[in-house]
Formats: sequence, structure tokens, C-alpha cells
Amino acid sequence: MRLYDYSDSGNGYKIRLLMAQLGQNYDYVEVDILKGESRTADFLKRNPNGRVPCLEAEPGKFLAESNAILCYLAEDSKYLPQDKWQRAQVLQWMFFEQYSHEPNIATPRFWLRHTELDSHKQAMLEAKQELGRAALGVMETHLSEHAFFAGEAYTVADIALYAYTHVAHQGGFDLGAYPQVQAWLKRVREQPGHIPMAAAEA
Amino acid sequence: MRLYDYSDSGNGYKIRLLMAQLGQNYDYVEVDILKGESRTADFLKRNPNGRVPCLEAEPGKFLAESNAILCYLAEDSKYLPQDKWQRAQVLQWMFFEQYSHEPNIATPRFWLRHTELDSHKQAMLEAKQELGRAALGVMETHLSEHAFFAGEAYTVADIALYAYTHVAHQGGFDLGAYPQVQAWLKRVREQPGHIPMAAAEA
Repeated sequence: MRLYDYSDSGNGYKIRLLMAQLGQNYDYVEVDILKGESRTADFLKRNPNGRVPCLEAEPGKFLAESNAILCYLAEDSKYLPQDKWQRAQVLQWMFFEQYSHEPNIATPRFWLRHTELDSHKQAMLEAKQELGRAALGVMETHLSEHAFFAGEAYTVADIALYAYTHVAHQGGFDLGAYPQVQAWLKRVREQPGHIPMAAAEA
Repeated sequence: MRLYDYSDSGNGYKIRLLMAQLGQNYDYVEVDILKGESRTADFLKRNPNGRVPCLEAEPGKFLAESNAILCYLAEDSKYLPQDKWQRAQVLQWMFFEQYSHEPNIATPRFWLRHTELDSHKQAMLEAKQELGRAALGVMETHLSEHAFFAGEAYTVADIALYAYTHVAHQGGFDLGAYPQVQAWLKRVREQPGHIPMAAAEA
């Protein structure tokens, strides 16, 4: 398998973390999104949506969308439950992550790290940060009664949510206000085979 | 089963359409999101993220996120393939829908139907419309070589993408520029058991 990825991407880190925990070897191809390398004609043949990560599962067979890749790789492992209701919960939290969490936590982080903010973008940043705090609040509420997000065990739902939550401070978020989230981050870090998101934690 | 929903919601329509095609009976509870009914303390016990649709699969067992609900209901039906690679493709397109499509096509539609636009919001609308046209372009490219989104058959991935694509004109999009998308919309409408999104097509 080959992973097209950008090392500072939390969405890519999800895949690298699961691969490590599965003991799965793969080729790694760095795609510098800041240089437009995910929008070249060659790359668009792999993922017409022009985004990383993108998994080449077999030569010429490409899969995009980090959370779809997680589910594909985790099938038949303990990281994706067989129980129908637990699987539904995993997907619920993964769609929550992509709709309510990632656009409002990862995007502020990206803007603060890689772009100049004019007054219009500063207003958009603050609007996103408000929605990001709401998403962290939903997680805090859930974690006040549960150790993990689905089925009371560590799954790909936790991996999906961990990726950008653990670097939320880089997007201007204060995790001090979310003690349950902080305790859960620690539980995730303590899982066997955990690896850090090197670039982000350097 | 009971569905908490808002009749003008495309995300809710996804569930109503699949329920009809499965021949599944359910109770329907209208939640008027314009009156804040999805943010009451009572509703937040059902979905702490304060959104519809929300499925009460059994008394007291709630599932949120339209695409997670689709996968849960479609399990063991022809609308969700068993093949591992085809399932991965279904999820890829569903995550595409929630990340790249819905926020840029459904949100402009909602703003144009239900809100007043100041100059700041007008600029945001136009930025979203540009991203929405990019998402429609990705669909057009895929549909130039495939009849449906996953496994060459109609699945929940098509239902997820149909919901807001077929009312994209209400968000300011001209589908005349996407003939493959238009032909696919027709194929979806011709599926057995298809029902319209009543409020939107009135």
C-alpha cells in the first residue's frame, strides 16, 4: 500500500497512527499542499477532489477521505467493532468530526500556521473558533459519561477525533476548559502502538 | 423507529427517501430548526450536537448524522454493498458529501431561503458557491465514467449526494453546466420507490 500524504496534516496523521497500531507497512509519498502538489494533473488522477491523504490500496486503486480510509483499513480489527449499533456510533462520531469539528478546529490551525489574516479572514477565524468550542463542548459532554466515543473501547472514531483535538491549541483553543477531553487525550496516547504526529509536536 | 427531522432539510430527506425504498415504517416528529427547536434542553438529550435528523432506533437509543443513519438503516440491504472495496467507496463519497459538498451547496441554499445577507455574508456566500461548483465538478468527472458513485449500482452514497444536488439551484447553482450530474439525477429519480423532497419541490 502507498499513502499520499502531507506530514503536517492531521487527516493524514489519522492514517499513519492506525497503520502503526495495525503493524501495517506502507510506502509514504509526501505531497506538499502548500506548493499546490495536490492540485497537479497527475495528482488529480488519484483524487479528483485534490486532497490528501489518499491511499493507493493496490496499484491503481485509490481511496480518498481520511475517515473512509480509516474504516477500510480497520475492517476486521478491534479498531472497528462488528456490532451494528457500535459501528453506527463510530460513523456518527466520524461524520461529526468532518462536519462540526475539523472545519472549525483544523482550519483555524491551518490559517494561523500558514496564512496572513486580513480583517475579513480574522472575522471568519473567530466565527470558526466559536463553532470549534461548541464541538469541543459536545465531546466534553459525551466524555463525562464515556471513556471513548463508541462502544466503550478505543476505535477509529477516537483516532479521527484525536488528530486535530490534540493540536487544537495551535488553532487558538484553550483545552483547559475541557478536562474530560484532556483525560481522553491521555487515554488515547496510552494506547499500545501510539505514535505522535511528529511535525506538529516538534 | 422514530425520526426527528425538519421537512425542508435535505439531510432529513436522505433518511425519508431510504426509509421509503426499504419499506420501513417510522414515526415522524417535526423539529422546527428556525424556531430553535433543535437546541432545547430536551432535544439536546437526544443529540448533544443540536441537529436534525436524529433517529431514535429503539426507545432511548439515538443516532445522529444523516450519513451514519443511512449506513445503519441500509446494512444488509442492496443499498449498502457487502464488498469491502465498494463499501469503502460508499464511505469516501459520503465523507466527500459532508465535507466538500453539503457545506458549500446546502448552506448557500439555506442562507438564500431563510436569512438576510449583509456584505460580509454575501462574500462568504460567493466563496462557498465557488467551492460548491468545484464539488459539482468532481461529481461531473466521476459520472463521466460511472453510472453511480460506488460499485456501479445505486447505493446510500447516491442518496447522500442526491439530497442537496437536486435542489442546488435554490443555492444559486446552475446545473446546466453539469450534464453528467443531470443525467445521474434522472437515474436516481427513476429508482423504484423514489419519493420527492416534498417541501423543496413544492
